[in-house]
Amino acid sequence: MKGGLEGGEASKVPLAAPAVNRGISILDFIFRVVAALATLGSAIAMGTTSETLPFFTQFMRFRAQYDDLPTFTFFVVANSIVAGYLVLSLALSVFNIIRSAAKGTRIFLVILDAVALAFLTAAASAAAAIVYLAHKGNTSANWFAICQQFDSFCERTSGSLIGSFVAVVLFILLILMSSMAISRC
Amino acid sequence: MKGGLEGGEASKVPLAAPAVNRGISILDFIFRVVAALATLGSAIAMGTTSETLPFFTQFMRFRAQYDDLPTFTFFVVANSIVAGYLVLSLALSVFNIIRSAAKGTRIFLVILDAVALAFLTAAASAAAAIVYLAHKGNTSANWFAICQQFDSFCERTSGSLIGSFVAVVLFILLILMSSMAISRC
Repeated sequence: MKGGLEGGEASKVPLAAPAVNRGISILDFIFRVVAALATLGSAIAMGTTSETLPFFTQFMRFRAQYDDLPTFTFFVVANSIVAGYLVLSLALSVFNIIRSAAKGTRIFLVILDAVALAFLTAAASAAAAIVYLAHKGNTSANWFAICQQFDSFCERTSGSLIGSFVAVVLFILLILMSSMAISRC
Repeated sequence: MKGGLEGGEASKVPLAAPAVNRGISILDFIFRVVAALATLGSAIAMGTTSETLPFFTQFMRFRAQYDDLPTFTFFVVANSIVAGYLVLSLALSVFNIIRSAAKGTRIFLVILDAVALAFLTAAASAAAAIVYLAHKGNTSANWFAICQQFDSFCERTSGSLIGSFVAVVLFILLILMSSMAISRC
């Protein structure tokens, strides 16, 4: 029975399971490629953000760069790390396509995906909190909205969040698909 | 064979699997209780934060409350929702202890756990970004560190993050344990 299971034959849903698992694995591969591109795009979009104003006021420096705010630096680093992880995980994803009954590698990926999900969400939402502050400011804390001055800086940083949040949704779907595939092994 | 599997008898690791799964389910139950208490504690600690200063300056209002900052309001709401979800999920967790071969409920919980993980991490790290700003300020954006004035407010909000991050770690462990249990069903 053990040998049969490893060959992907003696599953509980007799014939369909390996085919279904292969389909899930192929979708898994595509999602990982899309998520890797999304996080890489986010990292690049944020990492190249810089705006120099043509004038100089009492309250504002005339240059805004992403690394003026540590949260944005963390955002770039986290997105780069997650993109790197996603590219490396493609190898295991291919292995899962070939061996549709592989269980250990799927569990391994679920755990790493959950960690990457938490890490990426942390970076994306911390950056979103700062972007919100840059747009709206906060009167109670006397924090000014800097977006009136740094218009293109704000647009660029806001836009770069999209890729991260797309990747977060993809990670949730990846965990869902992996656990479905594990249950069919 | 199907009937045997549902009864938790004919697993791949013949005798140990149901017992191991029961152990995992009991640990799952304990982790959920701890995570529910941690998130509830965070929500209460943040939601009752308020500091009135004995003096009044030109730049600062003399009162700081958690809902002066929308991010902290989101933190309270998210922690309350996740605590509520965790209490509700205890029912399914108990079901998993009784029926150690139940597969559907485990997959269902993995998906909800992944969503709750992302939601809670978003709230916790957005609040952490604001707390960091309150402590350090940012000279580039002309945002002042408000913690020099609102000392106890800052300590309270910083402390309330701990419960959330403990729950985030527990969620990652819950997803790991669930996928291991699913593979043994």
